[in-house]
Amino acid sequence: MSADTNQSIIQSDIHHVFHSWSVQNQLNPLAFKTGKGCVLIDYDGKEYLDFSSQLVNTNVGHQHPKVIEGIIQQAQELCTISPAHANKARGLAAQKILEVAPKGFKKIFFTNAGADAIENAIRMARLFTGRRKVLSAYRSYHGNTGAAISATGDTRRFNNEYAQDHVHFFGPYLYRSEFWSSTEQEECERALHHLRRIVECENPANIACILLESIPGTAGVFVPPKGYVQGVRQLCDEFGIMLILDEVMVGFGRTGKWFAQEHYEGVTPDLITFAKGVNSGYIPVGGVIISDAISQYFDDKYFPGGLTYSGHPLAMASIVANITAMQEEKMVENAEKMGEILAIGLKKLVQKHAIIGEVRGIGLFWAIELVSNPEQKTKFTLAEMNKVKQLCLDNGLLPFIAENRIHVAPPLIVTEAQIHQALAIYDTVLSQMA
Amino acid sequence: MSADTNQSIIQSDIHHVFHSWSVQNQLNPLAFKTGKGCVLIDYDGKEYLDFSSQLVNTNVGHQHPKVIEGIIQQAQELCTISPAHANKARGLAAQKILEVAPKGFKKIFFTNAGADAIENAIRMARLFTGRRKVLSAYRSYHGNTGAAISATGDTRRFNNEYAQDHVHFFGPYLYRSEFWSSTEQEECERALHHLRRIVECENPANIACILLESIPGTAGVFVPPKGYVQGVRQLCDEFGIMLILDEVMVGFGRTGKWFAQEHYEGVTPDLITFAKGVNSGYIPVGGVIISDAISQYFDDKYFPGGLTYSGHPLAMASIVANITAMQEEKMVENAEKMGEILAIGLKKLVQKHAIIGEVRGIGLFWAIELVSNPEQKTKFTLAEMNKVKQLCLDNGLLPFIAENRIHVAPPLIVTEAQIHQALAIYDTVLSQMA
Ligand SMILES: Cc1ncc(COP(=O)(O)O)c(C=O)c1O
Ligand SMILES: Cc1ncc(COP(=O)(O)O)c(C=O)c1O
Repeated sequence: MSADTNQSIIQSDIHHVFHSWSVQNQLNPLAFKTGKGCVLIDYDGKEYLDFSSQLVNTNVGHQHPKVIEGIIQQAQELCTISPAHANKARGLAAQKILEVAPKGFKKIFFTNAGADAIENAIRMARLFTGRRKVLSAYRSYHGNTGAAISATGDTRRFNNEYAQDHVHFFGPYLYRSEFWSSTEQEECERALHHLRRIVECENPANIACILLESIPGTAGVFVPPKGYVQGVRQLCDEFGIMLILDEVMVGFGRTGKWFAQEHYEGVTPDLITFAKGVNSGYIPVGGVIISDAISQYFDDKYFPGGLTYSGHPLAMASIVANITAMQEEKMVENAEKMGEILAIGLKKLVQKHAIIGEVRGIGLFWAIELVSNPEQKTKFTLAEMNKVKQLCLDNGLLPFIAENRIHVAPPLIVTEAQIHQALAIYDTVLSQMA
Repeated sequence: MSADTNQSIIQSDIHHVFHSWSVQNQLNPLAFKTGKGCVLIDYDGKEYLDFSSQLVNTNVGHQHPKVIEGIIQQAQELCTISPAHANKARGLAAQKILEVAPKGFKKIFFTNAGADAIENAIRMARLFTGRRKVLSAYRSYHGNTGAAISATGDTRRFNNEYAQDHVHFFGPYLYRSEFWSSTEQEECERALHHLRRIVECENPANIACILLESIPGTAGVFVPPKGYVQGVRQLCDEFGIMLILDEVMVGFGRTGKWFAQEHYEGVTPDLITFAKGVNSGYIPVGGVIISDAISQYFDDKYFPGGLTYSGHPLAMASIVANITAMQEEKMVENAEKMGEILAIGLKKLVQKHAIIGEVRGIGLFWAIELVSNPEQKTKFTLAEMNKVKQLCLDNGLLPFIAENRIHVAPPLIVTEAQIHQALAIYDTVLSQMA
């Protein structure tokens, strides 16, 4: 055991494991043995400050003792049970989620992850409305299964379009506006006008739902302009369309609120999808938070969906422990507070580094967009971003890199000192890249 | 805690948890607190002999100490990590699976469960062949996500057909032949002829894969006649079609071999999907076992699929512990031996009970088909089957009920005494139903 090195672990991995989103002979993985809080440790003993939260999921940080304890206790009682049978952990997990969820929601349907949460939310919306079409944003990611990948707007959809009746639209993104806008307000109005035109042209009577990430995440952390989500909600109401807000990445404290949608006053969706932060990814799980009205609809109508591990006891126990730890340790409040410090620091970096096109975000969820020519907004190339990544790693920071951006998303327990440490590393790296 | 009763747990569950494959106000769940081996215990202390293995997944039985220990050890080291990063448990789990898999396979792609295993196997077959169509059986179940539910042949597909280019065919099932056959051999020849006609009529040049459960499970435990799977393999070879064998339910010892396909001499598929038995469902996981040729294809070509929890460390650790326990305790051998005893007992029941239309199966995987009129083969109704279920429960046995059938699928560690106990209960119940 003590002979494990990064090299030996990586060799075993790349020989036997087929990697996602990759060309298999171009892999260059890191290897991690263990972690603690915001820190990860590799097999050679090197430590990294994790400012990725992996795929933005380790909200309570690595190896949180209370969540581990919750898993161990449940493992000693009951590891697995068919979804047809009740188990205490499942009822508790559902109650715990409903306790922190917005008002107006009644039941939870549990899945294994984000993608199948979306699948089932879409299924509910289609059955509830009796309509087939699903509208979602081009710049979005909703998962990789048949329907979910078609709902996904980014290029990962291209060779996966095996599902029907998905239509895409552009959301607001002022820095690279699709609507020739020059102010946030203009971008908001035009994005809403564009969406209304798509709805009209696709026949509102056929549209089951509009599926929206509360804040589009992987696509680039697009905090929508004031009034946008309210406008989408109104459009939905006007035409009897269900609004699904995807909180897989931004739910459970990431933005300084339990759900990112709480930033949009007056907006309540019909369905909320979640995964990741709900248990910090300690056990695979996701699900749908179902409104009173849709819950009621299925009281006397059959729901034709299911999966072997729906409501898996270990996943349920980890949800209860995770939300409890977040409450006890005031992690959502910490995310809000630390988010303000992070915001100030990032805005200072913008002033200093011409290669930063824009920073945008909220709470502990930010993107730094890198451009080689600020006038033209020319995106950093893959080679340049690989160099950014390597420099971050050399300086002991594990970054989240997406296209020409660094996403900044530490665990919610991050301290002020760690934020300053990370900001100093970004500063160094960006100076070297200039 | 000690105040938990079946009643209190079920109340909390049905109020907050949305159930799969159900009308929500017709739920009547059982509640289980813990288990041990082949036994489950409810919150009132009543014990049940589990002859369902839940959804045919608890192959090592409930609460196997070695698998629990594997999970706990990994939980104390590292609970979650992004799929981009290597971790020791993942390399080991892949090696362990390849160790027991048929020859000719090279890499493992890990998913969260069965459905997304199928999704990704189909994706690989489509990309590898450059063709779109997917052929699968009407009487099959492959999962509930967008593409997988369309591949599914049974009625759960009906309101879920959102994916494209899925074509269905009939597989062999002599007892209710679709081909007017009167012998196994005739059924085999005609089923192969039928499949060839479908392939010809759908244009072989457009067919990416034929997806087949090695033994169709949920649909009714249809052990294929001798030569059928070989015939399908030949048809695939003739037209350059990939053969995907779905071993989600029958893999990892269920039929007395590591993989059910080992019963078909000379057959090697191109892709194998797995879940359930691989870790007995202790942590949600599934995956694809990839042939040398398909692995090689993706060496220099991009694979456009992925998911947050691919290769989840706790799932990986549970796979290693589960397969190791199965090897150390010779569970596959036990499944074969106990399967023979079970077969004898079930065949005796047929002789005694006219309401048994047919029993069929292999290893620890059987179906008892119940008919009210043996001449007409009239299926037991839902009400009759509910009564069968209740009588089994009253007698202390948790059965697996599907349509007009009792599926017999105990954990692989089942003892001879437990088999006789179960057979006696079935005997009693069937006498009462006559
Ligand atoms: C907003 C959003 N929805 C859905 C998903 C899909 O989740 P999963 O990878 O667990 O299927 C993701 C994953 O990154 C996501 O960010
Ligand atoms: C043969 C087969 N394939 C796929 C699946 C789907 O697996 P899951 O429910 O884990 O998505 C099942 C589930 O019963 C199955 O039996």
